[in-house]
Amino acid sequence: MTTERALKPGAVIGILGGGQLGRMLALAAARLGLKCHIYCPDPASPAFDVAAARTIAAYDDEAALAAFAAAVDVVTYEFENVPGATAEFLAGRRPVRPGPLALSVAQDRLAEKTFLAEAGIEVAPFRAVDSDDDLDRALAEFGGAGVLKTRRFGYDGKGQVVIRGPEDRAGALAKIGHAPAIVEGLVGFEREVSVIAARGLDGEVAVFDIAENDHRDNILKTTRVPARISIKTAEAARAIGENVAAALDYVGVLAVELFVVVGEDGERLLANEIAPRVHNSGHWTEDACHASQFEQHIRAIAGWPLGATVRYLDVEMENLIGADADDWPRILAEPAAKLHLYGKAETRPGRKMGHVNRLKTKSRGA
Amino acid sequence: MTTERALKPGAVIGILGGGQLGRMLALAAARLGLKCHIYCPDPASPAFDVAAARTIAAYDDEAALAAFAAAVDVVTYEFENVPGATAEFLAGRRPVRPGPLALSVAQDRLAEKTFLAEAGIEVAPFRAVDSDDDLDRALAEFGGAGVLKTRRFGYDGKGQVVIRGPEDRAGALAKIGHAPAIVEGLVGFEREVSVIAARGLDGEVAVFDIAENDHRDNILKTTRVPARISIKTAEAARAIGENVAAALDYVGVLAVELFVVVGEDGERLLANEIAPRVHNSGHWTEDACHASQFEQHIRAIAGWPLGATVRYLDVEMENLIGADADDWPRILAEPAAKLHLYGKAETRPGRKMGHVNRLKTKSRGA
Repeated sequence: MTTERALKPGAVIGILGGGQLGRMLALAAARLGLKCHIYCPDPASPAFDVAAARTIAAYDDEAALAAFAAAVDVVTYEFENVPGATAEFLAGRRPVRPGPLALSVAQDRLAEKTFLAEAGIEVAPFRAVDSDDDLDRALAEFGGAGVLKTRRFGYDGKGQVVIRGPEDRAGALAKIGHAPAIVEGLVGFEREVSVIAARGLDGEVAVFDIAENDHRDNILKTTRVPARISIKTAEAARAIGENVAAALDYVGVLAVELFVVVGEDGERLLANEIAPRVHNSGHWTEDACHASQFEQHIRAIAGWPLGATVRYLDVEMENLIGADADDWPRILAEPAAKLHLYGKAETRPGRKMGHVNRLKTKSRGA
Repeated sequence: MTTERALKPGAVIGILGGGQLGRMLALAAARLGLKCHIYCPDPASPAFDVAAARTIAAYDDEAALAAFAAAVDVVTYEFENVPGATAEFLAGRRPVRPGPLALSVAQDRLAEKTFLAEAGIEVAPFRAVDSDDDLDRALAEFGGAGVLKTRRFGYDGKGQVVIRGPEDRAGALAKIGHAPAIVEGLVGFEREVSVIAARGLDGEVAVFDIAENDHRDNILKTTRVPARISIKTAEAARAIGENVAAALDYVGVLAVELFVVVGEDGERLLANEIAPRVHNSGHWTEDACHASQFEQHIRAIAGWPLGATVRYLDVEMENLIGADADDWPRILAEPAAKLHLYGKAETRPGRKMGHVNRLKTKSRGA
C-alpha cells in the first residue's frame, strides 16, 4: 500500500448516484470505518439512509459539485452515465476513481467495442451506424440480421432493436430515435457469464469466480456461481477481466459481460459489455466470498490493498424486480436465503427492489 | 410470523444508544430494507453515520423522547443501562423490545444472580452487601475471599474489587463508593465462554455456537469459535441461553457469560452475567455465520422469523482497543482478516475502536 496516497479511517468517500449500488457501497465503506457522502438529484435516493452526508442537486450544478468536492477525499460513482463534464469538474478538485478513460469507453458502445477489439478480446462483429446506408451495408455483411443499439444511455435492453429480417429493419432506426448507433452481428450463444474484477491503485488485480447470468424481460434475473462452464473457459474469462482492468488503467471494480459460444472447438468467449462499477451480477459476492465486490471497490478507491476473493459457498442470486419483493415474508423464512432490500419507497414494474442470495455448501466447479 | 405484528420493509427502528453496537444494528437493518433512527446524547455517535435519522438529546428529555417515539415503529437499545423511566416512557407509546423485565434484571447484579439461581442455572455463591457487616459475614462464608461488585453500572471490570485477604478487604467498600453491592465467592475457572441467543416475538429461540473469550485488562480481547469445551458442555451452554431467553420472555438477542469450571466430574458451567443486547463476544457471527447476531436482533424485534445460526467457518475475533486500531494497514493486508472499524473520531486507551474477524476453514469442534 502506497501509504501517502491511501485514505485513513474516517476519510470521506463521495459517491455520485444514490441507488442500491451506492447504498451497498456505503454499507461496505462504513464497516471499514469510512464515511460516505452521497450526491444525487433524487431526494428519495435509497443510499441517503445509510450515508453520513448527502447532497441533493443536479449533476451540472457547479456550486453543489464544488461543495461536494470540498467535503470529500475521493470521488467514485455507481452508474456509468456520469456526465463527462461532471467527472471533469470533480477531477480538477479530487481524485475521481475509476478515471475518465473507463467512463468514456463505457458510455459509448462504439468506443467500448473498439477498445475491446484493440485489447485483443473477441467481440461480436460490429459497425457504426449513423445512417440508413450504414445499417443496410452492415446488415448485408452480417447476413441480414443484427442487433441495433444506441451508442449511449442503453441499459436493461433499452435502446436496442433486434433485426432478424426486413420486417424488423423497416422501423428500426426510428425506434431508437435515429440516435448514433452501432449494429452487431447476431451471435448464437449458449449462456452469458460475467467476470467481476478489482484493480487497486498500485495495479494489483483480483478477480472473483465467474458467474452465470439469466435474464428475464432483458433484466438480470438470476446469477449462479459456479457457472456451468469449463475450467479453461473460466480461466479465459478471468484473463479478460484482468486485461480490461489493466488496459483501462482502472481503479475500482468493473464487470465484463461475456457470451459463451459453443462451437466445434468447444467454448469460446465474446465480450459484450463493460460496466465501470460494481455490478448486479456481483451481488452474490457479499454473502459467498471473503470480501464482497463492494468492499473491493472501496478498498481500491481508498488506495488500500484488495481483499481476498475466495469463495466459501455456492450461491444463486435472484433479483427481486417489482412485485417480486412482495415475497419478502417467504424469503425471510428460508434458511438458506440472505435477503437484501434496497429501501425503495415505491414498487414499480421492472424496478430492482432487492435481491436474495441463496447459499449452499461449495461444490467443485469453475 | 404473526404478520399483523410484523414490521414491513421501510419501517423505522428506533435505537437508544449510538455506539458501535447501534451502528452494526443499523447496518444489518439497512440490508433488510429497514430504516434506523438513532437516539443518543453524544453528537459524535458513530451510529449516526449510517442511520436515516438521528436525535441528539438526553435520555430524560421527554419532548425529544415523545418525538422519537412518534417517528419510529419499534424501540430497541444497544446498552443495558437505559434508565428505567426512559424505557417506561417509550413503552407507553411504542413496543420496546427487549421488554422491561430484561432491563431490570440486567441492570442489577443482585436481581440478575437471583433470577439465574431461580431459573435453575448455577451461579457462584453471592450475597447482597449494603454494609461492612454484610461484607464480613459473606467473606467469612466464602473462606475470606470474594469479588465485590456494585449492583449497578459496572462494565469492563469497572465497579469491581477482588478480595483475596484482609489487605484487600480494608478499603474495598470505599473503592466502590459504598454503593449497593454484592459479593461473590471466588471461582477458579478454566475459561470463559458465552452463549448468544435470539428469541423471536413468537417464542422461537435460536442459539449460535458457543464462543470462548479471553480478556486483557478486564476488557474482552479475543473470542474464538469453536470454544475448547466438550460437546456436552456446549450443549449445556446452549440450553442456558435458551432457558434465560424463555424465562425473560425475551425478544431480541442476549448474551450470557459463563465460567467453565473443571472439577473431578469434568466441566461445569457457572453463569456470570446476562447482557440484554447484542454483545461483543458475538461479533464473530457477522463473518462466520449465515445470519449475524445483528441481523437476528433486527429480525426478532421486527417480529420476523429468526435467521439460520449455521456457522460456515472457524473464527477468531480480536478487539481493537485504543492504539490497536493503528494496525489497520497491516490487518487490511491479511488475506484471512475481515476488518471492522467503528468510525470513532478519537482514539483513547481502553476504547473499543474496531475488531477483526480472522476466518479459517471449519474444523470439527463444539
